Amino acid sequence: MLRRSLENRDAQTRQLQDAVTNVEKHFGELCQIFAAYVRKTARLRDKADLLVNEINVYACTETPNLKQGLKNFAEEFAKLQDYRQAEVERLEAKVVEPLKAYGTIVKMKRDDLKATLTARNREAKQLTQLERTRQRNPSDRHVIVSFDFSLKKCFVRYAVQK
Amino acid sequence: MLRRSLENRDAQTRQLQDAVTNVEKHFGELCQIFAAYVRKTARLRDKADLLVNEINVYACTETPNLKQGLKNFAEEFAKLQDYRQAEVERLEAKVVEPLKAYGTIVKMKRDDLKATLTARNREAKQLTQLERTRQRNPSDRHVIVSFDFSLKKCFVRYAVQK
Repeated sequence: MLRRSLENRDAQTRQLQDAVTNVEKHFGELCQIFAAYVRKTARLRDKADLLVNEINVYACTETPNLKQGLKNFAEEFAKLQDYRQAEVERLEAKVVEPLKAYGTIVKMKRDDLKATLTARNREAKQLTQLERTRQRNPSDRHVIVSFDFSLKKCFVRYAVQK
Repeated sequence: MLRRSLENRDAQTRQLQDAVTNVEKHFGELCQIFAAYVRKTARLRDKADLLVNEINVYACTETPNLKQGLKNFAEEFAKLQDYRQAEVERLEAKVVEPLKAYGTIVKMKRDDLKATLTARNREAKQLTQLERTRQRNPSDRHVIVSFDFSLKKCFVRYAVQK
């Protein structure tokens, strides 16, 4: 029963490792593409700002009616760029930064898993040793009880780490 | 009176030349910036397409609920990119191309103005010659009438070109 539960845990650990690797890969990709998307949006805003300036300069050389129309257009277009600026800041703060934070989170999870794996291996080794002792010397109660005790300690440590 | 009308036309020609130069300068600038704006929009669309792909790939590795949510988001985001594509095509066809066409229009107007200027100079020269003939030989009706006639032909040609 102990061996089966160990095998179960083995499968669980593998599953967790796969999940962490998957998140690491895809969140990294997503973070990069989102950051590129934000940069392109910022560049589009810059070009639009240039356009607003040029339309204003041209408007100044034109007749009053056309001038007014051009100025109005430039003003509305500039407002759109303010929204675009807000979009850039928002994406940066609410999407790119949290995705970046997953870099550290994934690293921490990987360390946790490593510690768990080390504890699990130590436990499996002691279990093998206990069974070997039992087979070799079934009447040696003293050694068997001592092993059993240290194995239980191991389980407790493992459970705490989990 | 003839001299004054010639001076008036001189001022008009200068005004037209200034207007053509102004349009040439500003429409050229506007055309370039609009073209750059369209290019940046197209690049933003490309990045967003990449993002849609990556979100779909990531969705496939996730649990059913999250998968569905991600797929929905990717789908809506892809629709936005369709609108962006329409924006690119529309700006290209309705703004950049017409502004480009002004290159040829400005060139034609400049040629027109040059022809007008040549005609005007010829006219002025003949007017000077006519007055000189009048002062030198007030009684020589034959030469004066012939000059007057050729000057009128000049005016007609100028009016047609205008």
